[in-house]
Amino acid sequence: MLKVVIIGTGRVAQHLFDALRSGTVAKVVQVIGRQSASLKRFDGTATHLIGDGQLAQADVYIIAVSDGAIAEVAQHLKTNSALVVHTSGGIPVNAISNHDRRGVFYPLQTFSSERAVDFGKVPICIEAKDAKDLKLLHNLASSISSMVYEIDSDQRKQLHLAAVFANNFTNHMYVLAQQICEENDLPFDMLKPLILETAQKIELESPLLMQTGPAIRHDVSVLQLHAELLGDGTRGAIYELISKSIQNQKHGLE
Amino acid sequence: MLKVVIIGTGRVAQHLFDALRSGTVAKVVQVIGRQSASLKRFDGTATHLIGDGQLAQADVYIIAVSDGAIAEVAQHLKTNSALVVHTSGGIPVNAISNHDRRGVFYPLQTFSSERAVDFGKVPICIEAKDAKDLKLLHNLASSISSMVYEIDSDQRKQLHLAAVFANNFTNHMYVLAQQICEENDLPFDMLKPLILETAQKIELESPLLMQTGPAIRHDVSVLQLHAELLGDGTRGAIYELISKSIQNQKHGLE
Repeated sequence: MLKVVIIGTGRVAQHLFDALRSGTVAKVVQVIGRQSASLKRFDGTATHLIGDGQLAQADVYIIAVSDGAIAEVAQHLKTNSALVVHTSGGIPVNAISNHDRRGVFYPLQTFSSERAVDFGKVPICIEAKDAKDLKLLHNLASSISSMVYEIDSDQRKQLHLAAVFANNFTNHMYVLAQQICEENDLPFDMLKPLILETAQKIELESPLLMQTGPAIRHDVSVLQLHAELLGDGTRGAIYELISKSIQNQKHGLE
Repeated sequence: MLKVVIIGTGRVAQHLFDALRSGTVAKVVQVIGRQSASLKRFDGTATHLIGDGQLAQADVYIIAVSDGAIAEVAQHLKTNSALVVHTSGGIPVNAISNHDRRGVFYPLQTFSSERAVDFGKVPICIEAKDAKDLKLLHNLASSISSMVYEIDSDQRKQLHLAAVFANNFTNHMYVLAQQICEENDLPFDMLKPLILETAQKIELESPLLMQTGPAIRHDVSVLQLHAELLGDGTRGAIYELISKSIQNQKHGLE
């Protein structure tokens, strides 16, 4: 079995740990963190604090820490020429260039501590300098997910940007919708079936072809009414700009 | 049983027809449309073209046509003081003020011809001038959905605006994400699990508390990188404005 050490104890580390533990290809031999409290979650596996205790021998060291800490963690990681990967969408592989055998193991999903994720459907984006290491990462990724993609750092940068639109900005649309509801004594629950259906429809058809609403219809009277309701603030500016962007698209349903 | 006439043959009319037909409280006695081709879908029910043939007697006449046509259809509808409702989120009840007994029966969902919708989970927003009519609409709505809300025209206007953010604008975020993928030889399928999970998380926690990403983290280096990748066009402007709006929010995860 592939021996794996995970450095980090956050949401990505937790979900990755659970997924690897339930697989048959790899064994997590050690988890390393900054605080003993957060290490408690990794029951039955050797753990130690960063800089404290002996680093276990492993085939792959997975640095699953926040973007800003990756380079520093990599700097202090002394392996015997083992493969070292990080799990970030936004950081190039060369951020850990002190390791000759370096790579990326990026699970493209939003993880919450409260919600279990079916890792089998989490796309894992892998990258490595060396073909043999890429194969190793492919084995590791395939053992926990059916969606494995080899993409380089330039593509991953763009993918991460696309994910900001698909996740962060989409979530902010929910926030703005919720605020409008609350300001008008409307339960946000009313919008939840619509939000779910909107997401589920992408399985059916390209979102470009599924676009509906006053902007794509060029329904001037509704657009004006909404502008008046929203006023001059940030929300009004967002409404105007996104409506304009929708109208710039060539396709869309009436 | 309540007798219902549906005027309109589009997606809302179709889904409403199917839902009412499978219920036990109402019977659709007639469907009226503009084109005989689109009337064919309403098998086994009396149909006729607008302005052609006899209007059936009914307890409720449901005008399920596009926003711009509601007033005109209402104008030409000659009922014997029956209740007349429209199904639009964006149109006030008084758009059909030539009917003394008037109301709204607004199913808050995005309907596609290709996808079946579980109407039992579609919020139905009802409004009527008269208390007795409101009760009638409540009975009708409860017979097909477990989510029935009495809201007035001012609230519905705001709800419709909130739905533009939750549905139309969210879908446009998917479009922009898809375009970034395609421009970089990345399959859009990679983002679909993320999009679904983002939507499903709203059942767990307020989206305001679930906000993640470079904007809420005030991660200046990623924000700058993304600005460079996007350039000066509409997409870049959207990125900047939504990031600013996220940062204006008080809460959010790190």
